[in-house]
Amino acid sequence: MTEPLPQGATIGILGGGQLGRMLSVAASRLGYRCHIFEPGAAPAGDVAFRVTTAPYSDTAALRAFAETVDVITYEFENVPTSALDLLESLRPIRPNRRALAVSQDRISEKTFLGDLGLQTAPWAAVNSESDLRAAVARLGLPAILKTTRLGYDGKGQVKLESETDIPAAWAAMDNAACVLEGFVAFDREVSVIAARSPDGSVAAYDPGENIHRDGILRTTTVPARLTAGQRSDAVLLAARILNALDYIGVMGVELFVTRAGLLVNEIAPRVHNSGHWTQQGCSVDQFEQHIRAVAGLPLGDGNRYADVVMENLIGDDVLRVPALLKERDTAVHLYGKGAPRPGRKMGHVNRITRG
Amino acid sequence: MTEPLPQGATIGILGGGQLGRMLSVAASRLGYRCHIFEPGAAPAGDVAFRVTTAPYSDTAALRAFAETVDVITYEFENVPTSALDLLESLRPIRPNRRALAVSQDRISEKTFLGDLGLQTAPWAAVNSESDLRAAVARLGLPAILKTTRLGYDGKGQVKLESETDIPAAWAAMDNAACVLEGFVAFDREVSVIAARSPDGSVAAYDPGENIHRDGILRTTTVPARLTAGQRSDAVLLAARILNALDYIGVMGVELFVTRAGLLVNEIAPRVHNSGHWTQQGCSVDQFEQHIRAVAGLPLGDGNRYADVVMENLIGDDVLRVPALLKERDTAVHLYGKGAPRPGRKMGHVNRITRG
Repeated sequence: MTEPLPQGATIGILGGGQLGRMLSVAASRLGYRCHIFEPGAAPAGDVAFRVTTAPYSDTAALRAFAETVDVITYEFENVPTSALDLLESLRPIRPNRRALAVSQDRISEKTFLGDLGLQTAPWAAVNSESDLRAAVARLGLPAILKTTRLGYDGKGQVKLESETDIPAAWAAMDNAACVLEGFVAFDREVSVIAARSPDGSVAAYDPGENIHRDGILRTTTVPARLTAGQRSDAVLLAARILNALDYIGVMGVELFVTRAGLLVNEIAPRVHNSGHWTQQGCSVDQFEQHIRAVAGLPLGDGNRYADVVMENLIGDDVLRVPALLKERDTAVHLYGKGAPRPGRKMGHVNRITRG
Repeated sequence: MTEPLPQGATIGILGGGQLGRMLSVAASRLGYRCHIFEPGAAPAGDVAFRVTTAPYSDTAALRAFAETVDVITYEFENVPTSALDLLESLRPIRPNRRALAVSQDRISEKTFLGDLGLQTAPWAAVNSESDLRAAVARLGLPAILKTTRLGYDGKGQVKLESETDIPAAWAAMDNAACVLEGFVAFDREVSVIAARSPDGSVAAYDPGENIHRDGILRTTTVPARLTAGQRSDAVLLAARILNALDYIGVMGVELFVTRAGLLVNEIAPRVHNSGHWTQQGCSVDQFEQHIRAVAGLPLGDGNRYADVVMENLIGDDVLRVPALLKERDTAVHLYGKGAPRPGRKMGHVNRITRG
């Protein structure tokens, strides 16, 4: 794939959640169709050209899916390796496998970032209760124990406040490979949504300032309260990550702003919840930016023409929709997920605070 | 239908062109699904939950379509009466039949507007060459002869410059019922995109200033060059039309700005090409506004947070897309229509001129 994807081409998306849904809508604006592959319920299917409902172990379904698409991308990073091996033998996958492999495992990710000369929270690999005890002794408390794989939105992690928490914390991990992360005294959390295209050009949006609660993103505010120096450091750091991975697509890079500089908390090789504000703030939003990169089209420059506060609607927050629809300068985005469940992302709103 | 449509409900859309496509995307943001009914090619189908491809004479298909949807709307006004009769017996149609009937026929439309006390261009019904000769004698030249029905984008109309044009002009109309419209010396053309909800509340966007070429809209610019008085006159006039029709949904009202005040050129009982700028200028665009009205949700207030110039991509204009994708502060919207043909609307761009 060296030529841009022609209009009318089909993009395959692994995963049919809200990110796939918004990617499919963005692809339509560029004249593309999307085919969603999703084992479970697929809200993305409401606005996709086609949907395949099958498990990732169904090689016939994977093969049939690949044959109808021109390029494959994904909306979440935990696609099984065996499925990716098969798909990659049939069609290009963007972003590439290395980006996925690095970000699927917290230890690979932290090692990769460290090798690039970037700072992370202090960490230690933990594979037993005695490892955990040694790690606590070295990193101090409080600290957070996380599974190395399959964690998201606060799942697969537990906070340790005192040494007496050690046995229960380790037991909760069910013998999974883990990493202990030391406490970071940060001033604020920000994220950079950056994109890289096949020709190596990189574009980043203004960093957004994030507020999490119970491990789940609640709000992102642009502009973030950063100095000009912090802002350019954040963008340069993201570009360094994308270049090192020979990345194609949009990536979310979560950062801690500390007195000692910027620390990388986590990277996500996909469009990211903290980039949803771009739907109202930029002429090319993160979803279209990702599709542009995957399709080999020129990237938008990321210029922002409004200030925005994005708020997630989680679980019963969605009951506030009737009132939210009446708010001035507020864009409501619902995901078509049916009944609310605690912790489930049901939608988001973008409030325009300055046009 | 007195309660708002619940999330997860399905909206039926008659017509599968670009307007249906953008309506379906807007509906998804509000948690709705769309089912498109379209006899021909349906670019809207790329982003719809379901598509029925059948002629409007296929009563079984119409019936099956109606049974899967909760409410029916349309993206163009020339749906055959027989199809509407059947559909209306099964599900509510919004906007209502009267709005369609009035706007399907230029004479009904002008009579309706005149009865409301609104000004139009001087006109005369023409059903024969001698009618045309008499109308020319009364209204003067230049003038435009139009079929009363089924005209759009400059089709079904011919301009008369001199009396010698009369026989050819009449012959070109193939004995269709026609109307002759006298020449209007206007300063500019503007349009108001307004919406009305089931509870009678009305919201209008800022008027846009339109430039047509060969009978096809080329650009819409907001804000339009209007005085404050003209601006409020335009909005009040649109509201009067919506209220008189007990209208539910978005309507496009095209106006001529003249020294003698505002003249109504044409009304369209649907989302309108001259409202595409709202996608980048407002938190609730015209497509979502229409869906909100049809679904009985609160309307957005129409507030504009950016200045925008919308440019249509017609026929080979679409070949400029690679360059347009590189433009700063420019949102590209393509319709997925395949090969360009002269006069065919392939997409549009919204240029943000002030954020």
